[in-house]
Amino acid sequence: MSQIPATQRAVSVHAFGEPTKLSNDHPVPDPSSLGPNECLVKLETAGVCQSDLHARNGDWLLKPPRLPFIGGHEGVGKVVAIGKGALVEEGGVKVGDRVGLKWIATVCNKCEFCRKGNESSCPKRLTNGFSTDGTFCEYIRTWTDYVTPIPDVLSSAAATPLLCAGLTVYKGLKHANSLPGEWIAIPGAGGGLGHLAIQLARNMGLRVLAIDSGEDKRKLCMSLGAEQWLDFAETSNIVADVQRLTNGGPRTALVAAGGAKPYEQALIYLKPTGTLIAAGLGSDAVMQAPFMVWVGKELKLVGSALGSRQDAIEVLDLAAQGKVVAHYTTRKLEDVESIFTELAQGKVTGRVVLEI
Amino acid sequence: MSQIPATQRAVSVHAFGEPTKLSNDHPVPDPSSLGPNECLVKLETAGVCQSDLHARNGDWLLKPPRLPFIGGHEGVGKVVAIGKGALVEEGGVKVGDRVGLKWIATVCNKCEFCRKGNESSCPKRLTNGFSTDGTFCEYIRTWTDYVTPIPDVLSSAAATPLLCAGLTVYKGLKHANSLPGEWIAIPGAGGGLGHLAIQLARNMGLRVLAIDSGEDKRKLCMSLGAEQWLDFAETSNIVADVQRLTNGGPRTALVAAGGAKPYEQALIYLKPTGTLIAAGLGSDAVMQAPFMVWVGKELKLVGSALGSRQDAIEVLDLAAQGKVVAHYTTRKLEDVESIFTELAQGKVTGRVVLEI
Amino acid sequence: MSQIPATQRAVSVHAFGEPTKLSNDHPVPDPSSLGPNECLVKLETAGVCQSDLHARNGDWLLKPPRLPFIGGHEGVGKVVAIGKGALVEEGGVKVGDRVGLKWIATVCNKCEFCRKGNESSCPKRLTNGFSTDGTFCEYIRTWTDYVTPIPDVLSSAAATPLLCAGLTVYKGLKHANSLPGEWIAIPGAGGGLGHLAIQLARNMGLRVLAIDSGEDKRKLCMSLGAEQWLDFAETSNIVADVQRLTNGGPRTALVAAGGAKPYEQALIYLKPTGTLIAAGLGSDAVMQAPFMVWVGKELKLVGSALGSRQDAIEVLDLAAQGKVVAHYTTRKLEDVESIFTELAQGKVTGRVVLEI
Amino acid sequence: MSQIPATQRAVSVHAFGEPTKLSNDHPVPDPSSLGPNECLVKLETAGVCQSDLHARNGDWLLKPPRLPFIGGHEGVGKVVAIGKGALVEEGGVKVGDRVGLKWIATVCNKCEFCRKGNESSCPKRLTNGFSTDGTFCEYIRTWTDYVTPIPDVLSSAAATPLLCAGLTVYKGLKHANSLPGEWIAIPGAGGGLGHLAIQLARNMGLRVLAIDSGEDKRKLCMSLGAEQWLDFAETSNIVADVQRLTNGGPRTALVAAGGAKPYEQALIYLKPTGTLIAAGLGSDAVMQAPFMVWVGKELKLVGSALGSRQDAIEVLDLAAQGKVVAHYTTRKLEDVESIFTELAQGKVTGRVVLEI
Repeated sequence: MSQIPATQRAVSVHAFGEPTKLSNDHPVPDPSSLGPNECLVKLETAGVCQSDLHARNGDWLLKPPRLPFIGGHEGVGKVVAIGKGALVEEGGVKVGDRVGLKWIATVCNKCEFCRKGNESSCPKRLTNGFSTDGTFCEYIRTWTDYVTPIPDVLSSAAATPLLCAGLTVYKGLKHANSLPGEWIAIPGAGGGLGHLAIQLARNMGLRVLAIDSGEDKRKLCMSLGAEQWLDFAETSNIVADVQRLTNGGPRTALVAAGGAKPYEQALIYLKPTGTLIAAGLGSDAVMQAPFMVWVGKELKLVGSALGSRQDAIEVLDLAAQGKVVAHYTTRKLEDVESIFTELAQGKVTGRVVLEI
Repeated sequence: MSQIPATQRAVSVHAFGEPTKLSNDHPVPDPSSLGPNECLVKLETAGVCQSDLHARNGDWLLKPPRLPFIGGHEGVGKVVAIGKGALVEEGGVKVGDRVGLKWIATVCNKCEFCRKGNESSCPKRLTNGFSTDGTFCEYIRTWTDYVTPIPDVLSSAAATPLLCAGLTVYKGLKHANSLPGEWIAIPGAGGGLGHLAIQLARNMGLRVLAIDSGEDKRKLCMSLGAEQWLDFAETSNIVADVQRLTNGGPRTALVAAGGAKPYEQALIYLKPTGTLIAAGLGSDAVMQAPFMVWVGKELKLVGSALGSRQDAIEVLDLAAQGKVVAHYTTRKLEDVESIFTELAQGKVTGRVVLEI
Repeated sequence: MSQIPATQRAVSVHAFGEPTKLSNDHPVPDPSSLGPNECLVKLETAGVCQSDLHARNGDWLLKPPRLPFIGGHEGVGKVVAIGKGALVEEGGVKVGDRVGLKWIATVCNKCEFCRKGNESSCPKRLTNGFSTDGTFCEYIRTWTDYVTPIPDVLSSAAATPLLCAGLTVYKGLKHANSLPGEWIAIPGAGGGLGHLAIQLARNMGLRVLAIDSGEDKRKLCMSLGAEQWLDFAETSNIVADVQRLTNGGPRTALVAAGGAKPYEQALIYLKPTGTLIAAGLGSDAVMQAPFMVWVGKELKLVGSALGSRQDAIEVLDLAAQGKVVAHYTTRKLEDVESIFTELAQGKVTGRVVLEI
Repeated sequence: MSQIPATQRAVSVHAFGEPTKLSNDHPVPDPSSLGPNECLVKLETAGVCQSDLHARNGDWLLKPPRLPFIGGHEGVGKVVAIGKGALVEEGGVKVGDRVGLKWIATVCNKCEFCRKGNESSCPKRLTNGFSTDGTFCEYIRTWTDYVTPIPDVLSSAAATPLLCAGLTVYKGLKHANSLPGEWIAIPGAGGGLGHLAIQLARNMGLRVLAIDSGEDKRKLCMSLGAEQWLDFAETSNIVADVQRLTNGGPRTALVAAGGAKPYEQALIYLKPTGTLIAAGLGSDAVMQAPFMVWVGKELKLVGSALGSRQDAIEVLDLAAQGKVVAHYTTRKLEDVESIFTELAQGKVTGRVVLEI
């Protein structure tokens, strides 16, 4: 294992709404200070996500609890040190392992939610790049029992977008109560989450109607297995069009687009007894849900946030089988601010992965 | 079987928003005109419900399709004639049977929803007192395979409120994903639907927090098995109070009160991963659901409308076992308009059942 | 519509255990005698199944209730007459429609099982080629509300094997509690049921280990999407081999082979908390299930017999989408006895479909 | 906290099939040797179970892996020491807490089964009184994150039988797919597990048929809420009697009696589509399951072993609510061998709890 330096490059938020700062001499966490359940990971990649911009801007209802902090919540790297007293049992993480970091950094493993495997709702969870230092750096201190092993057949860059975007839609799709052969509508199908959702839905045997806009996204969606395409910018009646293209309306809609509108449209076009899945996009918006619609049609509206360590292992296993492939472009650590600008302008296609 | 007269007393809606009219010489459907799947029922009781007032006023998005029509969608009576060519097999309805009528009068039994047992969503369903003549009369023509047999141990009056109010909350409670020993909050617990929901929830092993207002309702709720009571008119912070009384928030809320507010409050006080059940109150209201709340807390919002013929049999079986008892007062057919007035003024306690 | 003759060709069982007889002047059911829920179907195809041989031999615990009877329980044909008084509503069957016949001919539509959509357990169900005359003939009287519409894109011969073999394994697979990406083992994968199960399991995202014997079956299974193959005749330790090929044991096993042995082996090789699905092969065998195994490993053992009219529509819809394709050879009505001989000798590959 | 002595009283197995030995100077685990996830518990009570006799006799397929060992797998006591380096966070166990020990002593918390909350199937689990020293002693070294907090309102003796017997049937009942108002049959209803199952089933709204033998057990079962009773020693046709008493057969059977026979009878008397629950009695028996019965009737057979730490918390919470009360007699540590003799002779009524 290479020697661990005392300082590193890191991108930190110092004030909400202001540009992040790239430091070249940020201290590396001291390996000798690691607790029995902690390790130090040398990062190879980090994904950049709209949520990182929200954390930087502090524009959610809930702000990051302290300043400054290192941003970033997706990443892959190698374990270079493990805490003293750690029991490196078979099955546990050891030095040299390649592991992934997710939005959730650690959970209490004691509360009702953890005991039931619903750890996303653990009230003591810490989150990377938000309540604890994140992945926009070279060395991250993290928790051995919460990092995700990366299958050998996946490159670090290819695995990175699955650790948040992939995980989020994967867990969301578990709530679909559709049979193979039934339709699912995916608004935002051409984006970072949506393009993974298409593949995961197809792999469950669902027929996919991809909803998004533009020829590039149409091509991408159809190449990933969507059976129908609807450009929301070119339809004057999205409800009628969705129902026409899906033989009367899909049984499920998984919304991978921002804002309340795609949800409200889905309430209308879904088949009676259908399911609307909101896969945790971190929006401040408010959905207007008329009782005559969602109760009259007996819909289920399912909120799904994040995913568990088991969900992460499952979606990476599917990726290792080649069932889901992330589309991404690679950039550098010094590009974080310019990527933020592009994200804010809606100019990013697919996912951006930093090579560190 | 007594002789069937040519005319009968019946309460009809002639113009939306105007008082119903009681006729003494409304024609009785001709028994010789019954089809093979039809029968004539001599009614003994009919329940009066807020929905009957909506049908009379035509103030829902969807109006009754024709005028005039006889109102009423709950009722119990005896079969006095069956259509020619009907196969009166063992298990089918025969002359002399006591049967119940529900909101749904008949379904197609062919469509996807019927084939799956989700017949409430059958696009061809007919509904009593709305799209077909209802139970505010002496003789009703109806469908043999959709009426519900009434267990011998239940009086007709005692069975009546279960056929709509009881059925609606019973089906709703099937969506609770709570374990015995967990809390459920029931806003509107002292009303026609709510007081039945308390008993049905208790019978599932749930701990009930009853939410309503007034000493009479408090007494009723506690006598029916509620473990905690909250008077919404006397609290300045309903969310904090609900969470305090239920050890951190209930896992499930079944709203048996009108308007959007009780739903919006439930989104806040529910435990993460909890379930909000909207049991089909027929409201035109719109719920405001902030994503940060229902997605962030991973809630399920379940719309449940009406109930199937199987649900109706199940809830009557529970009533026959003494597990749920309806509280009602009896009135006469000529009282329909005054009952409507009382309903509009919120003066009705429990359910009103007409003796015919 | 062509004229309906008075007599037809039909293959009947006259004595259990003796050869069936082909008659050229069997009476055609009189169209004028059809009840309001009955129709006459002119058959184009009929499948031949091991169960037809059991019915002919009367060697099940339960024998066909009367002699003689026409055999056969899979078939596709056109409706040529409908009973007087039938309500030919939109959505119902009409003269000229192409429809399929299944093992179940009709159910009561009134009992607890029918009301719940578990109509396979209806105590009054009638079964084609067993308790009512079957499909080894030219004209069959059957029930309008229980026949299955055949999608236009499927030929009658291609649809036939789906109506029993396909339906049976399709319903069985609904009981799999596997996630996409998990393993399923299918003993008997190369046979009439198994080769359809491979495709349906793949379409659900499962990884398939096909278990059967012989190079022909290996080729067929791999071409249909199996990821691993095990020749049971060439392994000395089937349990160890299954676990090796499936990364520690499959989560689910669906047994499409006869006898108790494949079930008993599955109990051993399944992963803890796994599911064993017995998809109704009509065997008189008895499974030996040691408590230390199935309870200690917390297995679920699921018996699944036949399928509902909704299941039949779903599996035909998947076939119409091209997700499952039956492999079959065609023969003639006069070949029934020789096919029975070949079935008894295990010489039949795939399904045999009679062209009528 | 009282001072921790160097030696203690303990009952150990030294040779399979031979009497256990009570030592007065067994060493107490050294508190200074505790790891960060370990604690020392001063026991107040220990339950005695048929499984302890199996462990002592080594007559299961799987024997305890080493000799000698201290027996006993149910127990309640107070934490008197915690390992160095332990993070005593809010929600974790601390010195002075009263906690319960179960069959499972600890799990890996890393494997697929642990990640999914199916920790009973963890391949690395250790079990009290079997693969690690158990509760027939004064001081036990155990794992902080796996002991169960005991609610204040429960005495240690009252809580003890819930930690294995109660937990086992509680988890088993989670597999019942019955609606409130449906019947469950409980063979062995008057025993240690069965008498708890009656109460837990009643609390779920099920109607209970208790099956056992003798007037004492009949009285106990009826007093706990059973609605029907069947003395298996006094019936000549148990299947017919069960079906007569339960309106055609129960939907669910939970077998709390030893041997294969009660299971095989349940296969026959269960309603079609019913569920047979085998709640982990640790028997070497083999069930004979005829395909014509369990597949023909579409039964589910569910093996349920042990329970999770979450299940344990839930069943103790129900006990704290008064919904389930264990019936037990108290004895002393020196009585273990005589209790074993009584258990082997079937003379024990309810549960025996040792006061230590």
